[in-house]
Amino acid sequence: MEVKLKPKFIDLESGGKNIVIINTEDAKDIDVSALDRVYVRANGKKVTALVDTSSTMAKQNEIGLFKEVQKELHLTKEPQSLSIEKIDKPKSVYLIRKKMDKVPLKQPEIESIIEDVMNDNLSEIELTAFVTAVYINGLNEEETLALTNEIIKSGRTLHFPKKVVLDKHSIGGVPGNRTTMLLVPIIASAGLTIPKTSSRAITSPAGTADVMEVLAPVNLTEKQIIDTINKTNGCIVWGGSMNLAAADDKLIKVRHPLSLDPHGMLLASILAKKKAVGSTHVLIDISIGKGAKIFLKQDAEKLADEFIRYGNLLNMNVECIITPGYDPIGQAIGPALEAREILRILEGENVSPELKEKGIAMAGLMLEMAGRAKHGEGEATARSIIDSGKALEKMKEIIKAQGGDPSVSSKGIRIGKKSMTIKATQAGRIHYMNTRDLSTIARAAGAPKDIGAGIYLYVEKGDKITKGQNIFTIYAESDSKLKAAEELIDKLQPVELEKTIIGTVFSKHKS
Amino acid sequence: MEVKLKPKFIDLESGGKNIVIINTEDAKDIDVSALDRVYVRANGKKVTALVDTSSTMAKQNEIGLFKEVQKELHLTKEPQSLSIEKIDKPKSVYLIRKKMDKVPLKQPEIESIIEDVMNDNLSEIELTAFVTAVYINGLNEEETLALTNEIIKSGRTLHFPKKVVLDKHSIGGVPGNRTTMLLVPIIASAGLTIPKTSSRAITSPAGTADVMEVLAPVNLTEKQIIDTINKTNGCIVWGGSMNLAAADDKLIKVRHPLSLDPHGMLLASILAKKKAVGSTHVLIDISIGKGAKIFLKQDAEKLADEFIRYGNLLNMNVECIITPGYDPIGQAIGPALEAREILRILEGENVSPELKEKGIAMAGLMLEMAGRAKHGEGEATARSIIDSGKALEKMKEIIKAQGGDPSVSSKGIRIGKKSMTIKATQAGRIHYMNTRDLSTIARAAGAPKDIGAGIYLYVEKGDKITKGQNIFTIYAESDSKLKAAEELIDKLQPVELEKTIIGTVFSKHKS
Repeated sequence: MEVKLKPKFIDLESGGKNIVIINTEDAKDIDVSALDRVYVRANGKKVTALVDTSSTMAKQNEIGLFKEVQKELHLTKEPQSLSIEKIDKPKSVYLIRKKMDKVPLKQPEIESIIEDVMNDNLSEIELTAFVTAVYINGLNEEETLALTNEIIKSGRTLHFPKKVVLDKHSIGGVPGNRTTMLLVPIIASAGLTIPKTSSRAITSPAGTADVMEVLAPVNLTEKQIIDTINKTNGCIVWGGSMNLAAADDKLIKVRHPLSLDPHGMLLASILAKKKAVGSTHVLIDISIGKGAKIFLKQDAEKLADEFIRYGNLLNMNVECIITPGYDPIGQAIGPALEAREILRILEGENVSPELKEKGIAMAGLMLEMAGRAKHGEGEATARSIIDSGKALEKMKEIIKAQGGDPSVSSKGIRIGKKSMTIKATQAGRIHYMNTRDLSTIARAAGAPKDIGAGIYLYVEKGDKITKGQNIFTIYAESDSKLKAAEELIDKLQPVELEKTIIGTVFSKHKS
Repeated sequence: MEVKLKPKFIDLESGGKNIVIINTEDAKDIDVSALDRVYVRANGKKVTALVDTSSTMAKQNEIGLFKEVQKELHLTKEPQSLSIEKIDKPKSVYLIRKKMDKVPLKQPEIESIIEDVMNDNLSEIELTAFVTAVYINGLNEEETLALTNEIIKSGRTLHFPKKVVLDKHSIGGVPGNRTTMLLVPIIASAGLTIPKTSSRAITSPAGTADVMEVLAPVNLTEKQIIDTINKTNGCIVWGGSMNLAAADDKLIKVRHPLSLDPHGMLLASILAKKKAVGSTHVLIDISIGKGAKIFLKQDAEKLADEFIRYGNLLNMNVECIITPGYDPIGQAIGPALEAREILRILEGENVSPELKEKGIAMAGLMLEMAGRAKHGEGEATARSIIDSGKALEKMKEIIKAQGGDPSVSSKGIRIGKKSMTIKATQAGRIHYMNTRDLSTIARAAGAPKDIGAGIYLYVEKGDKITKGQNIFTIYAESDSKLKAAEELIDKLQPVELEKTIIGTVFSKHKS
């Protein structure tokens, strides 16, 4: 049943949702309640919107339109009238119930759910029920493949006219794990195609996209990406700007608040993003340990087996490595600090050896996967590409092609002006560096928004330290954030000596 | 970390949620995102609110307050400043994860979840995950009892200084099932206490509270209820006004959109409401069949066993009956039509025999449960209370005590002025009356909001009908709603003859 109402612009954004306000009395009459969905038709367009009710914001026969709705309907001024129609529960609600009842779904049913996800026909409650049901009941092979294919279909896809298109993915949550920025120039330098899309920080102090953005724009159009690849073989861009695997972004909105990565959804999400950029060969790095998402080696092995199996079913050659995620990788945490560290490594400086070695090892495996190096020889090839300076040159080419300044050097990277160095108040051996706490401190210092903010570590697990030795420096762009980070250090005590002394372990020296 | 912001009143209701609008840039600075929760402190009060972000509705350093927040903070004008503080994920989020991971929860863990539910510390996403996990993984005995007790604790409770306090509950979704309005006067007339709380229609054309409201106010205070019971032994009031089992109302907000009644939650919800009004003896009517919530007899029997077992664990004497829910019970659907039907039965008219017999049978069982009739003799006692007119007198006493007009009679009930009678276009035998479709049609006609709207049935399943015979009449309060109902009849064809003829089966005669 369509109902005509008089539109009224409301100068309010909901943060991405289409919301309309209907008068409380009208809502009773037309049998809609808050959170029901309606079609709103005006200006020859139709959008799906959530209903909110109010007795003040919309008079009788009025309908208030949030900014998102005004925009989607292409309205520049309030039209005379528009019509709304209550949407019945979409069919996929019953399919979600089915999944809750442990009945496996068929491909067309998964298709129907993802269609409703993409058309915003499912409420947050319904989406959450789906994600929770998938988490508890799991997905079988047909479901996982169908979900992956539907996620691919939901967004844009890229195609490169190459036999081999390489990609890598890290499942981690390990700060400083910036191997992508070493891999991409090595692989591209070897003449192989690697169109790498990366993420921004959500709860971490920096994502690879944030770090690359210190050096060059990462928010590229499809054409700019293809141009960059044509010129340099590689790129490091923000995946979010490209609308790849769009359905996944909608599912993440529910998964994130619950910190929930249902197994099958994790597989589907990662593989869909790889397939969407046309990857043929994918290396997946699964970190395990206290600070990482996965705790146990056997869980990582099981996940690796599944990545390989489903990768093959999707016509991708997938290999996995399992790496330690107990400690931060490299010495830098925070966008500018990490960008500087990558440049230093590429420039030949002896910093963050663990990060450099991991990058070389992974690049070596990828060269072998692509047949560009014989088995067991990839690492040496990768190392020579870095040591010869070729990787640095390639990185500058990529920076230039993405629109950055290719004359950049590690010395030119601006780091936060405010800093404070933490020193050991006693001698001992480093027993544990809490990656989660270090992330929290770096965020309090301003990372990733303040790109110069973060932490630079001078020690790693197992190091013997002497009293007064520098442990790490916090950088920030304001005194207040430096202070906020400092307060957290006292509270969290992120670095533990082998025999912990109760009480304050560190003294602070501001500069 | 507390942040000071300048409050700005927003003339907008969210429909019950506390929402504050924070400037998009500020939100990044203080590390909150849309849907995060914050404490808002002002005027010596503290409320929990959901964050929404906007670049227009709140300038930097401003915070927009929805009406609900203004009210909860007792603000009558915009104060100079207030402070907000980001709330970390409550502990119960981890408990919900535990339940998702199939780990049974202990009593203090359930307590902690319900506490967070009551303090609005859980988002809709988190609540949905909990309900979904309970639906899929079930609840064990400790969990069910803990949930029931926490739901009882979350709201108000009543106590009557009587050894026996009777109650009944129908699990149905069967239209016209107004047995409560027969039972209560019979039981009260026998000198037994029956403080009956009922619900309003949510998706049905009338709840018992809506029907009783045609005769008397149902939105009573605790004192008014106690006075009514003291005067008359019984009452029929709206449960929602009393804040009984408050946590259940919060859980229902998630269960309702998913049409989800997790088994353990259904038990807890019903038993908590009975216990909260001080019931000692409870009769539960479980309807089964196509139109009802439960399909199979064995499922109903299993549920009945559990009601009895958990009831006993909660010190209540519970008995269950399983009744057919295939067809509407009684001839009337809609508030005024059903109220008139009840009065007609109490006045001795021979209408809705199925409803009358069900009411008498249930009242008889309750009299036996309470020891007021010998085994097998309850029904006869109940029948004599109706037939003697005592039940009618008692109903009038209750109507008066609740604030209604005791001189009411069935003839005085105002029914919708617009009507249309559906006649058989051919002879045959009634094979099936679709209760869900009849409900939908009655709602389209205006029920429950238009109290005179609804359907009056002249036939029941199994009846032989002749061509031209009246099947049912639709009543409405406006031509447009009558038309809306009429269109649905064509579409839904709610009454099926034993051999369905394809094509239009009914003709319409407006009056």
